[in-house]
Amino acid sequence: MKSYLRLNNEVLHHYNRTGRLDLEKDREAARRYFLEHVNVKMRYFIDVDEKIRYLVDEGYYEREFLEQYDKAFIEQLFERAYGYHFRFPSFMSASKFYDSYAMKSRDGAEILEKYEDRIVIIALYLARGDRELAVRAVDAMMTAYQPATPTALNSGKRARGELVSCFKLSMDDSMNSIAANIGYCLELSRLGGGVGVNLTDIRPLGDPIKGILNRASGVMPVAKLLENAFSYSNQLGQRNGSGVVYLNIFHADIESLISAKKPNADEKIRLATLSTGVIVPDIFFELMKRDKDVVLFSPYDIYREYGKRMSEISMSEMYYELLDNPNIRKLKRVNARKLYTEIKKAQFESGYPFEVFDDNVNARHPLRGLGRVKMSNLCTEILQVQQTSVIHDHGTENEYGMDVSCNLGSLDIHKATQTDFEKLVDTAMRLLTNVSLMTDIRNVPSVSKANRLMHSVGLGVMNLHGHLVSQGLEYGSDESILFVDAFMEALNYYSLLASMRLAREKGETFHGFELSDYADGSYFDPYVDKEERELPEPVRRALGTVPVITRQMWQELKEQVMAHGLFNAYRLAVAPTGSISYIRNCTASLAPITERVEIRDYADSRTIYPMPFLNDGNKHLYKEAWEIDPFRMVDLYAAAQKHVDQGLSMTVYVTDQWTTERLARLYIYAWMKGIKTVYYVRQRLQTIEECVACSV
Amino acid sequence: MKSYLRLNNEVLHHYNRTGRLDLEKDREAARRYFLEHVNVKMRYFIDVDEKIRYLVDEGYYEREFLEQYDKAFIEQLFERAYGYHFRFPSFMSASKFYDSYAMKSRDGAEILEKYEDRIVIIALYLARGDRELAVRAVDAMMTAYQPATPTALNSGKRARGELVSCFKLSMDDSMNSIAANIGYCLELSRLGGGVGVNLTDIRPLGDPIKGILNRASGVMPVAKLLENAFSYSNQLGQRNGSGVVYLNIFHADIESLISAKKPNADEKIRLATLSTGVIVPDIFFELMKRDKDVVLFSPYDIYREYGKRMSEISMSEMYYELLDNPNIRKLKRVNARKLYTEIKKAQFESGYPFEVFDDNVNARHPLRGLGRVKMSNLCTEILQVQQTSVIHDHGTENEYGMDVSCNLGSLDIHKATQTDFEKLVDTAMRLLTNVSLMTDIRNVPSVSKANRLMHSVGLGVMNLHGHLVSQGLEYGSDESILFVDAFMEALNYYSLLASMRLAREKGETFHGFELSDYADGSYFDPYVDKEERELPEPVRRALGTVPVITRQMWQELKEQVMAHGLFNAYRLAVAPTGSISYIRNCTASLAPITERVEIRDYADSRTIYPMPFLNDGNKHLYKEAWEIDPFRMVDLYAAAQKHVDQGLSMTVYVTDQWTTERLARLYIYAWMKGIKTVYYVRQRLQTIEECVACSV
Ligand SMILES: Nc1ncnc2c1ncn2[C@@H]1O[C@H](COP(=O)(O)OP(=O)(O)OP(=O)(O)O)[C@@H](O)[C@H]1O
Ligand SMILES: Nc1ncnc2c1ncn2[C@@H]1O[C@H](COP(=O)(O)OP(=O)(O)OP(=O)(O)O)[C@@H](O)[C@H]1O
Ligand SMILES: Nc1ncnc2c1ncn2[C@@H]1O[C@H](COP(=O)(O)OP(=O)(O)O)[C@@H](O)[C@H]1O
Ligand SMILES: Nc1ncnc2c1ncn2[C@@H]1O[C@H](COP(=O)(O)OP(=O)(O)O)[C@@H](O)[C@H]1O
Ligand SMILES: [Mg+2]
Ligand SMILES: [Mg+2]
Repeated sequence: MKSYLRLNNEVLHHYNRTGRLDLEKDREAARRYFLEHVNVKMRYFIDVDEKIRYLVDEGYYEREFLEQYDKAFIEQLFERAYGYHFRFPSFMSASKFYDSYAMKSRDGAEILEKYEDRIVIIALYLARGDRELAVRAVDAMMTAYQPATPTALNSGKRARGELVSCFKLSMDDSMNSIAANIGYCLELSRLGGGVGVNLTDIRPLGDPIKGILNRASGVMPVAKLLENAFSYSNQLGQRNGSGVVYLNIFHADIESLISAKKPNADEKIRLATLSTGVIVPDIFFELMKRDKDVVLFSPYDIYREYGKRMSEISMSEMYYELLDNPNIRKLKRVNARKLYTEIKKAQFESGYPFEVFDDNVNARHPLRGLGRVKMSNLCTEILQVQQTSVIHDHGTENEYGMDVSCNLGSLDIHKATQTDFEKLVDTAMRLLTNVSLMTDIRNVPSVSKANRLMHSVGLGVMNLHGHLVSQGLEYGSDESILFVDAFMEALNYYSLLASMRLAREKGETFHGFELSDYADGSYFDPYVDKEERELPEPVRRALGTVPVITRQMWQELKEQVMAHGLFNAYRLAVAPTGSISYIRNCTASLAPITERVEIRDYADSRTIYPMPFLNDGNKHLYKEAWEIDPFRMVDLYAAAQKHVDQGLSMTVYVTDQWTTERLARLYIYAWMKGIKTVYYVRQRLQTIEECVACSV
Repeated sequence: MKSYLRLNNEVLHHYNRTGRLDLEKDREAARRYFLEHVNVKMRYFIDVDEKIRYLVDEGYYEREFLEQYDKAFIEQLFERAYGYHFRFPSFMSASKFYDSYAMKSRDGAEILEKYEDRIVIIALYLARGDRELAVRAVDAMMTAYQPATPTALNSGKRARGELVSCFKLSMDDSMNSIAANIGYCLELSRLGGGVGVNLTDIRPLGDPIKGILNRASGVMPVAKLLENAFSYSNQLGQRNGSGVVYLNIFHADIESLISAKKPNADEKIRLATLSTGVIVPDIFFELMKRDKDVVLFSPYDIYREYGKRMSEISMSEMYYELLDNPNIRKLKRVNARKLYTEIKKAQFESGYPFEVFDDNVNARHPLRGLGRVKMSNLCTEILQVQQTSVIHDHGTENEYGMDVSCNLGSLDIHKATQTDFEKLVDTAMRLLTNVSLMTDIRNVPSVSKANRLMHSVGLGVMNLHGHLVSQGLEYGSDESILFVDAFMEALNYYSLLASMRLAREKGETFHGFELSDYADGSYFDPYVDKEERELPEPVRRALGTVPVITRQMWQELKEQVMAHGLFNAYRLAVAPTGSISYIRNCTASLAPITERVEIRDYADSRTIYPMPFLNDGNKHLYKEAWEIDPFRMVDLYAAAQKHVDQGLSMTVYVTDQWTTERLARLYIYAWMKGIKTVYYVRQRLQTIEECVACSV
């Protein structure tokens, strides 16, 4: 065994006998990994100049972006980055970076860049010739800002995927649209993003086609087609293609979609790799409360009768109208509670479907003047308005609507509380905005149109749990919730400030700003009218350098935004940071940790990954997700959600001891607290808790 | 049980006791079926006028084509058709027609047209206002001409699929092309045709993408995507979508493709509904003869090195050049005989893959001046030159090449020998040509381009076996082969004559005529130089009214064609007539029957279908496919193939007693005899032969 793996594995060596974690072994493993692996495989260059020249000449780096800077500046920037004396704090983060993110030679034999090199290249690339921004970018990334995987991975490379993580597509009920969207999925999946597709507008199984009864195959075979497209088209081995399909719970095919992820589902409808999500409007919960049946409909009828797609109406507003309208077929009747129990069962068995609480999303949607949000994305954090394209026969111009591309980035909460927060957020927003300006998804016109007009981004956070523990706070405690509330409020505030500044500088707002709740100031009212309360000392300490935002500050910002507008239609979204948090040695997103010490088994080796800040002193404070009251976790996410214009990836953790009723109650609680989306359900067998790592 | 079903089933009633077939019971069943089913469900109209008005007003028929004729003419045409006093000769043909082809009300409750009505509507529709042609069309269809299913089914209907049976697409090695072709498959499958796709140009599993090694997923996932597209998109219940993928035997992914149809293939690569075919160049047989290894290549290398797609080169010419070229990777080495044995095994187990003998196809290709034929279609009878399109990113004009749409029709050989053959073929060619002119596959530009320029059609034949038996001839006998030779020569001759007349009338030839073997007359040389032999009397009798073509006639035709050209780039192709032969009460295509009396079991009933002309006197002459020497069957097909510019659907019949060696020998024999393609392998367990119907 490699000596660094042995060292890494020794973290748990004495655990069985003495209960002690040998955490310093992991730091030693990281050091050894460099000596024995990274430094050996690293291609040697005399200096920065030679390195850059080689990588450009050999076609690894794009030439153009480097030519925006002079040599001296580039050298200084490298020096600045190296000046941070960055050291990977764990073997896991080092190996993840060098396995997956660092540029390697085409044959895979040589490593061509170090962590600092990648950061500098990202900075130079995203700053687009703006030297000041490039410097700020290096500082931000060397401390608290992390671009999402596609940006981190692809910036500056010549043969590269896109910089954007995330796409949402709307599919229309026609063969042309289905064909076009399959093409888009192949393309987007190849460019490297996760793609969400809304199937709500596709007529269900058994519906008429061309007036002939009982002809349509419904949404499931379309989902299958998409699944195959995603599994074919990948980011050249760096990430698999991934997608999710959403369906409204009132769509007549909903039961098939719910069953499709069950491990024992029929091969024909089973979706093995595609994720699924259900759109749940308030009226559904109402019917459930009153123990009523829900009636399932066809988008085909709705479109013919009202000239609107099913995804474009508010089911909560229209439900009784649809019931009364004799032209709307009542395709099925199912007891609401029974249907929801089916969903909970499926979630127990498979983790799916995700849920989107339609009315929570739309009631709190600052751009509701522009339209309804119909769906979410692969990780349920993106919630943006869309407009369905109409795809005509060849030879007639298509009418392109707007779909979504959204680029993501996250702040390390811990580091963010030790830095100039306003500047950090401003830098992050500028870098994300530049990504959106540099993104041109040519082959998907609805996406490139929306991107051009909306400049939407998704700034999120990670390392909440780690930071709380470092501050002696317990995840789910009142203090932790107050902390999240204040932190996310500040994030919201400064992201608005940054976006307003961008609009002012550029003399341009996102398209439709004037119809938004920002334009008439109503968005700010809850902040301007808020009650100002003194925060408890531990919370203030945990906030560190992050300012507490006052009503006065909000009032001023309100006026500035009303005067100058915002450049970004959407700003905040909390992604799971499922990969990138490892590089950063952060806990993921706003989520609780799942294991104090993760054990990853590979084909012929095992990696031990102790959570950040874990030590013998805090291991009892460092609760694992399943030990935390899930209702408190929802409270915490709800505190954050108030300040986020889009959504949060919130996974729900259950054990096999849970009942479907309890799970349903948790979801209903989340819905009542204003949560917009629930990501997947992660189950742990009670027995697993007895394993070494978990009971540390 | 319905009385007509009972009657139909009584055909075999006395068989067990007395060995007698009660064939009149089936005619009685057909009569009863009309009295009790058809006439009851048939919507009553006072006269033709009312019928037409109703069907137009209710949106069943298209209005425009009828407006090309005056009422009186339409009425006369109906009278003419009814004047034939057509009666379905068997219950099977009647029920097939009324189940699958006759127009029914949208709710399926009423039958809206009789057999004669459908024929007249087809005639009016395809004659495009030409009254004389409409009359000739009715006469031809009431006697010996049968349009293929899509034409028979869709002509004149308002909500309809296309009229064309058959499409071939070429796929280029890029994501854009793959995406575009999936869209095309959805569209074509929906329009109602079988689609063939050539995967030879897709780089194999493990090839580089963007220069990065070991990234490509190869052809199998692309095949999977196509399979899903075909199974999703169907002709609204009238026919399922169907497709076939072809791959050159020298392509590095060939082994996966061969295994993909095996019943026990891994779920991930198994193709359940998609058909497969292998392109086999002469050089492969040569290597096999010399018991050599074959080296498998990647189209990626070939394109980079020679600027040509793998499908565009002659492997037989290039093989050793590729071997010697150090820039061409030798991806795999497999013993040729072993590989061919694998194919034979797969064919035993699953019937697939089809085979296309690349050099037989191209050596005898009259348009070889325009390019190579790279592949065939769903039933291996279509062989036409194609040109790969280059699909660019959105915003750049695509470069559309030529793909294939081909509309089919068949002559009932038996009826054809009792009619004015020249006129019959001329009428058939005009009707098929009109179908090609009326076809506009707008959403697949390469297909519509080829159709516009080439006017390709595929006239074939059916009822060979039935006719032979009616003439006291045995399938596979010398006489039968002489008959086929003479009949098909006449068909070739008159189809050329008709196409020349069309070119002369229209003053237009197909695109590229001047590069063809027709233009320099070389196509005709074998005919002009042929040895003229007296045909034996039974053969002359069997030919009936079909003239024997003399050298003199060929010489004259040669001059006319050289002077006026041809309107149709391709004219002849012998389809399996798998559905349409039932309506006509014909034996299928050139094929031997598989059962003297077919027994079809449905969910809750059984239908008995005695072969046409079967009677107690000829049942020993009427051999079933498995009783016929397959080498003689190949001889018979080879006799036909000589006169056909495209191909013949030839199924091979084997029993479980065969060895793979014997099957290989049969294929090699077929290859040596100049057969161009082999359709699938149909196996019968020896034991089945003991069942009632088979041993009649
Ligand atoms: N992201 C991907 N996932 C799976 N297959 C891919 C991907 N990208 C390309 N391919 C496959 O690789 C082949 C080349 O595709 P394409 O020409 O679109 O890529 P490219 O970017 O031009 O790369 P190259 O220069 O290698 O051709 C095609 O067979 C295509 O299907
Ligand atoms: N041939 C087909 N096979 C399977 N599904 C089909 C087919 N044609 C259409 N569909 C499905 O039916 C729906 C309508 O498709 P589309 O609008 O392209 O058809 P259309 O000819 O306009 O018929 P309609 O008037 O009913 O909309 C879509 O969900 C589409 O996927
Ligand atoms: N396997 C994947 N393939 C493609 N896109 C993905 C995948 N996983 C996540 N994404 C996209 O990235 C977004 C952010 O997910 P996240 O886990 O935060 O990614 P990361 O940590 O790699 O930056 C998701 O919303 C989704 O759109
Ligand atoms: N199930 C099918 N779906 C679509 N096309 C088909 C199907 N079966 C056959 N075809 C097309 O029709 C052509 C002719 O086949 P054939 O059996 O002669 O059809 P038919 O008897 O119905 O006219 C084939 O070459 C193929 O292109
Ligand atoms: Mg439509
Ligand atoms: Mg390419």
